[in-house]
Amino acid sequence: MHRTKVTVVEDALDANNTIATANRADFDRAAVKVVNFMSAPGAGKTALLEQVVRELPGVRVGVLEGDVQGSLDADRLAHLHVPVTQLNTDPSFGGECHLDANMVRSAIPSLPLRDIDLLIVENVGNLVCPAEFKIGEDARVMVCSVTEGEDKPLKYPLMFRTCELVLINKIDLLAHIEFDLERLLYNIDQVHPDVETISCSARTGEGVGAWREWLSLLASREEAVA
Amino acid sequence: MHRTKVTVVEDALDANNTIATANRADFDRAAVKVVNFMSAPGAGKTALLEQVVRELPGVRVGVLEGDVQGSLDADRLAHLHVPVTQLNTDPSFGGECHLDANMVRSAIPSLPLRDIDLLIVENVGNLVCPAEFKIGEDARVMVCSVTEGEDKPLKYPLMFRTCELVLINKIDLLAHIEFDLERLLYNIDQVHPDVETISCSARTGEGVGAWREWLSLLASREEAVA
Repeated sequence: MHRTKVTVVEDALDANNTIATANRADFDRAAVKVVNFMSAPGAGKTALLEQVVRELPGVRVGVLEGDVQGSLDADRLAHLHVPVTQLNTDPSFGGECHLDANMVRSAIPSLPLRDIDLLIVENVGNLVCPAEFKIGEDARVMVCSVTEGEDKPLKYPLMFRTCELVLINKIDLLAHIEFDLERLLYNIDQVHPDVETISCSARTGEGVGAWREWLSLLASREEAVA
Repeated sequence: MHRTKVTVVEDALDANNTIATANRADFDRAAVKVVNFMSAPGAGKTALLEQVVRELPGVRVGVLEGDVQGSLDADRLAHLHVPVTQLNTDPSFGGECHLDANMVRSAIPSLPLRDIDLLIVENVGNLVCPAEFKIGEDARVMVCSVTEGEDKPLKYPLMFRTCELVLINKIDLLAHIEFDLERLLYNIDQVHPDVETISCSARTGEGVGAWREWLSLLASREEAVA
């Protein structure tokens, strides 16, 4: 007798993964690389985007802005003349605290995938839930600002563990705060050994070249075998 | 015919409110005032607690520490010799990004309610979901640090709208950053007109006296009619 076994989708994260894979396929077909860009509120994601989106030679960048409410970050990026799509998570009482694959899927028809090579998705400012939901990205990048303290990798390990790159931002403030950069790097290493880090300042431009280079390399990366 | 109408509990937030009311009753019976203390990661909640928990004349303070994982903040407070209870939200994959009423309820048997007058619940660092879940508190206080930028009230309005007090922390850094305090106050006023604010620095101690005074007043506040 012929028997077929079908394993059912088990929970919300499984369903999310299914949709993320579909997103991934759409992005691959369009040859668009996707970065899931995450941080705590106010760590400097938008400022770090302002520094790079127009200055990646040969790479056409688009941005998908995820916010609970409003379009402040999209407005900030408007003058850079790159395509920016706004996604709000606020249909319910207080809004979702993260993007998930289905929200990104709903935005795909509005994305100019033919006109870009690299899509940067600015997630909702939050160090917990965004790390739990794949959206169909090629890489995850997080920003950790030095004003947040050295303990964040130990308190929010999943976020640090699932990123390929950690941007350590606001290093121009190091002279004015009690902060031990070596201790932060040690703590990052505890939860994600050998993850790449770039110390930078969106304000002074320090380290921004390395961040730009990292994105250029990602954009030219060969398609990964899924 | 006798008819009785029972309105069913409608959703997760209703269930949460039911449990929050039960918590509230327990705290009232013990004559303990409760503060739900919230902010983005790294805004300085623990540092602002370190400044006040031992120095409230006539008020015996206890702390309930909510974290995704670990006990770093509880450890920081240990030397202050006030009762600290740790609550971790990490049973699932990445952990819950907020405390809810049921989590706090599960901690009540571990709280020394007879020995304290004021319980400060340090919520998970997050500007979205903690604002959606009542835990049985008398008051909500949030910390917004100046390094996070002026736009946070507009991006996370529910958090600012549901707090009675906004502590504007890290003002010792104002000289070193591009930040317009008037603009932040204006944005706070847009989403929560006339909410009380205190500008402060856990590092220099500026404004900490006003924060202490606010807590003392809360602790001596007459029981609100529920």
